[in-house]
Amino acid sequence: MPNKIRIALDAMGGDHGPSIVVPGAELSLARHPNAELILFGDAAQIEPLLEKSPRVKAASRVVHTSVAIRMDDKPSKALRQGRRNSSMWLAIDAVKKREADVAVSAGNTGALMVMSKLHLRMMAGVDRPAIACQWPTLKGVSIVLDVGASIGADAEHLAHLAAMGSAMARVLLNVEKPTVGLLNIGVEEVKGLEPVREAARILREQPWPHMQYYGFVEADDIGKGTVDVVVTEGFAGNIALKAAEGTARQIGEFLRAELKRRLRSKLGYLFARPAFAAVREKMDPAKSNGGVLLGLNGIVIKSHGGASAEGFAVAIDIGYDMVRHDLLAKIGEALGHDPGRATSAGLVEGVAS
Amino acid sequence: MPNKIRIALDAMGGDHGPSIVVPGAELSLARHPNAELILFGDAAQIEPLLEKSPRVKAASRVVHTSVAIRMDDKPSKALRQGRRNSSMWLAIDAVKKREADVAVSAGNTGALMVMSKLHLRMMAGVDRPAIACQWPTLKGVSIVLDVGASIGADAEHLAHLAAMGSAMARVLLNVEKPTVGLLNIGVEEVKGLEPVREAARILREQPWPHMQYYGFVEADDIGKGTVDVVVTEGFAGNIALKAAEGTARQIGEFLRAELKRRLRSKLGYLFARPAFAAVREKMDPAKSNGGVLLGLNGIVIKSHGGASAEGFAVAIDIGYDMVRHDLLAKIGEALGHDPGRATSAGLVEGVAS
Repeated sequence: MPNKIRIALDAMGGDHGPSIVVPGAELSLARHPNAELILFGDAAQIEPLLEKSPRVKAASRVVHTSVAIRMDDKPSKALRQGRRNSSMWLAIDAVKKREADVAVSAGNTGALMVMSKLHLRMMAGVDRPAIACQWPTLKGVSIVLDVGASIGADAEHLAHLAAMGSAMARVLLNVEKPTVGLLNIGVEEVKGLEPVREAARILREQPWPHMQYYGFVEADDIGKGTVDVVVTEGFAGNIALKAAEGTARQIGEFLRAELKRRLRSKLGYLFARPAFAAVREKMDPAKSNGGVLLGLNGIVIKSHGGASAEGFAVAIDIGYDMVRHDLLAKIGEALGHDPGRATSAGLVEGVAS
Repeated sequence: MPNKIRIALDAMGGDHGPSIVVPGAELSLARHPNAELILFGDAAQIEPLLEKSPRVKAASRVVHTSVAIRMDDKPSKALRQGRRNSSMWLAIDAVKKREADVAVSAGNTGALMVMSKLHLRMMAGVDRPAIACQWPTLKGVSIVLDVGASIGADAEHLAHLAAMGSAMARVLLNVEKPTVGLLNIGVEEVKGLEPVREAARILREQPWPHMQYYGFVEADDIGKGTVDVVVTEGFAGNIALKAAEGTARQIGEFLRAELKRRLRSKLGYLFARPAFAAVREKMDPAKSNGGVLLGLNGIVIKSHGGASAEGFAVAIDIGYDMVRHDLLAKIGEALGHDPGRATSAGLVEGVAS
């Protein structure tokens, strides 16, 4: 683990580029004074912002590029136009070259995944990346993955997700043997998809030194905090995440509208406001901003494209924590006991760099 | 449309059986005096309850059976033990025999689906049932289907779901051409599953006299009320539903806990209570209780197993509305313009009774 933690930032990523990235970095640096930054992007836009961000100015260097990936570019186009020279690619490249320990981008998710996979390559035994998020629960925080990196998963990929997610939980939640549940549905005739049932068998039967397999969970278990890690393929995971976010926003709007409608309640609102603020804080997407791309030979963090400076700072914080607690080594440990190795040794060779 | 609407109730279904079903029926009858009920179940349990439910007593007859399907029976076991003689089967049988217009059960979902499919058979051109629910939104209510009847769907099944869901929306929402969206995810490299893309093509290119195809929606669009009908296969649909329910409960618990923690907020709570109550009412699962089994030659309503009497009454109400506004004819109309008929005429023959 390096003494200084070196963070590569795609300064042009997200809906607002450097105007969010630089102040976000300033907030995160205040919490992590031993971080060093490399900012990739348009120097003419970045440098004026440094004047208002003295910590960033002192702890960073700027690497200029005029090429930025647009939020709505298809990954194929992004790759054609931005490979080797875009701010996103250069941030990933810094991780590849060991000049940085982690890359953080609020840019186009598809482009970030494709570039990361192409340049950093997958870890031995893992065939494609996943995105893991932190999900606020009644008990604290759980890790949910995959929330949209790829659609569909066979049993082996689900087992990999379990291993990688539990490694991330060890880092973030500070538990030695996180509990892991497989997302399933409980109301249908034959319970669940074949890959989910098969993954359950793998997780139940193999010895996993760093996780504890709990069993199936349903989507309403996520918010209860029934398990530390919830594993699912990316389509269902993304739908769970968006449905929860949508419901939280919906309830917020209902409450605001109802309180506005009633004079008596307006008075009540004044009294109840601290409680609302506390709940809003707990459910605030910014507080759990930062999806971790897992399965790569390197750490890449995806911030929400519309994140505020505070949200982007949290994404940097997560990257920092992942490096400091050596996520990659913990994933390696977890995958070392991966049944994928035992049962299909060919996989461990594979695409490893 | 019959003058009297005849409703068959599985009096033994749900976690609490007749002790919920009978008072629930009483509540619904107060709103629908022209309904007639047949209660199937253990007469020794049902009849004493009628004394406290005068409307039910006056407007119902009891058909005794001592066989009840258990909530945790596998469908295969339920069928082996309860075919022809269980309260659930007999309620469905009343619809089959045209003695009732609709069956309502809070029993085991899997058993209800299997029995309904076996006994009522599927409509021409539809290969398996779906469960549609009402979802409270910022704009009112939307229909979401399938929320867990079956896992996976090809493009044609998704198009059927669109047709059936829009027929249900015409009944419930009183719009002539409901808007229909296909649930998809927006963050991954190649957007969406092949069947979802193919269904989009079918819905876009065919003329649908009774619906308006909107396009893809994400799961956070559901609560916004972006479209009247959200179509997805049962695994993702069930996960969206449970994730939303879980989040609503979680926020409720956060709010309660925060308000309890603060004296000042407790006072605020007194003032803000009417607004809380209004929001709780809007998000109350009981208010939208009652999944409609679609695609069958008959109307079957699934109440939540843990529903209160009020919740069960809402499920009966939905069944009543579906009969009164002739859901089956509207689904027939919708499927008459179904591309499945045009492109694969064999389907229309099929399993139709």
